[in-house]
Amino acid sequence: MTPLPIVRTVADLRAQVSAWKRAGLRVGLVPTMGALHAGHLSLVTLVKREHDKCVASLFVNPKQFAAHEDLDRYPRDEAGDAALLQSAGCDLLFAPTVDVMYPTGFATAVTVSGVSAPLEGEMRPHFFGGVATVVAKLLLQCLPDAAAFGEKDYQQLLVIRKMVADLDIPVEILAGETVREPDGLAMSSRNAYLTPAQRETAGLLNVIARDAIARIEAGGAISPALSEAKAALAAAGFSPIDYVALHDATTLAEIRTPTLQQAARLLVAAHLGGTRLIDNFAVRSV
Amino acid sequence: MTPLPIVRTVADLRAQVSAWKRAGLRVGLVPTMGALHAGHLSLVTLVKREHDKCVASLFVNPKQFAAHEDLDRYPRDEAGDAALLQSAGCDLLFAPTVDVMYPTGFATAVTVSGVSAPLEGEMRPHFFGGVATVVAKLLLQCLPDAAAFGEKDYQQLLVIRKMVADLDIPVEILAGETVREPDGLAMSSRNAYLTPAQRETAGLLNVIARDAIARIEAGGAISPALSEAKAALAAAGFSPIDYVALHDATTLAEIRTPTLQQAARLLVAAHLGGTRLIDNFAVRSV
Repeated sequence: MTPLPIVRTVADLRAQVSAWKRAGLRVGLVPTMGALHAGHLSLVTLVKREHDKCVASLFVNPKQFAAHEDLDRYPRDEAGDAALLQSAGCDLLFAPTVDVMYPTGFATAVTVSGVSAPLEGEMRPHFFGGVATVVAKLLLQCLPDAAAFGEKDYQQLLVIRKMVADLDIPVEILAGETVREPDGLAMSSRNAYLTPAQRETAGLLNVIARDAIARIEAGGAISPALSEAKAALAAAGFSPIDYVALHDATTLAEIRTPTLQQAARLLVAAHLGGTRLIDNFAVRSV
Repeated sequence: MTPLPIVRTVADLRAQVSAWKRAGLRVGLVPTMGALHAGHLSLVTLVKREHDKCVASLFVNPKQFAAHEDLDRYPRDEAGDAALLQSAGCDLLFAPTVDVMYPTGFATAVTVSGVSAPLEGEMRPHFFGGVATVVAKLLLQCLPDAAAFGEKDYQQLLVIRKMVADLDIPVEILAGETVREPDGLAMSSRNAYLTPAQRETAGLLNVIARDAIARIEAGGAISPALSEAKAALAAAGFSPIDYVALHDATTLAEIRTPTLQQAARLLVAAHLGGTRLIDNFAVRSV
């Protein structure tokens, strides 16, 4: 089997995508930062279900890391990632350098207000500006028919949907369900940072969150359910706990009613050792 | 002759542009705020020189007016504008409402730093954010092969070029030379605000600017040439004078050498009665 073709310039990417489109083929894009796992590969499967060709991008975007974050130690293995993508049915890898994405003098930013403000927006103030800018670029470089993003980064998915709608970017946004380990831990490239003991504890995050959700879906009071989930995470060894919060599923406005009256999302961010884990879950209204 | 076709939704715009593209035709866009004059029509001519079809847009963009500016009294005459566009060879008018461009909950902004900072960026802090956002939308709604902008708004032209390059918007940006009245006054929709006496004085702005340029191009000292141009504008009745400034032609960095050593642009903004006039001119290095 020939290896997955890799292009590194926008011109080469567009030449291949244009050729496919001229041939009447539908093209989907899966943007990634590499360090691929089954969650990413499920997005390739999702794209290939209704598209003839799948392009994946691999770019560790410096604009979405703050100075104190893990840009330098973020796991990188392009050859391994390319092999995984090919096994999942991907047809082309776009792996640009930082100079291709942000040449000297780069000066443009795309920002989304509202849905980007709470939660990750408070914890990582530069994050969504960096995400919106790089995703706008990737979509416009590739001009696919669709692009797929994981629900694991739920707020990011909403920010991207808003940006694409507001700027009239002619691309359909597909959402892939979070893929989980047998113990329910959401797959994440950052799970690789965990020691075996931390990895065992990490599996409790989704269990504790689901317990809170069960109580809320049964009509229980929201505020104590969230407080007790935080206490359970702390008792399990998570520290600090950035948030355990219940927000509207679409607007991401915080829910302030005593019990649940609308479609919601429970979102969690907590640290274990030096590793920050996030997860989120649909919550049905009573 | 049938009147110029007008579309008001993005779907209708895309249907026509897609049909043209499928037929192998090249399409250019001329974004306008209406109140058209020969300057706008020259952009239609510029587009039609190398493109089969020309789309013009007419949208008075509220995001690029500050609260105290002239949004409400900005001249509007869609039927007259459509007739002028058709006479110049335009093939389609896209005239969306504010609700089409900025539906409730619109939350995305495109900003360009650097080239947008001085001059108009200092005088009208919201201006270029509003321009970059609406132009990104118009380009992505229409997806033309090229779009034309006038050099009359020189800094705006540079901001748009930077935004398009940085975000990889797949559209060629064309620049049209400023069209002038017989006395050299740059054509502008806002000239309609001038009384006959003010209109006569307005013709001095380009004369005073060209006099400063002649001295600078002859190797004269920059600073006194600009100061004397300001004094001449004030003596003619312009007040206040926002700037008479010499900047790098590409980066728009202010030029601080005693005499000119690089390709430059002289830019002027000055008020006459309640009307703000801007103009700019190429300046050759010695």
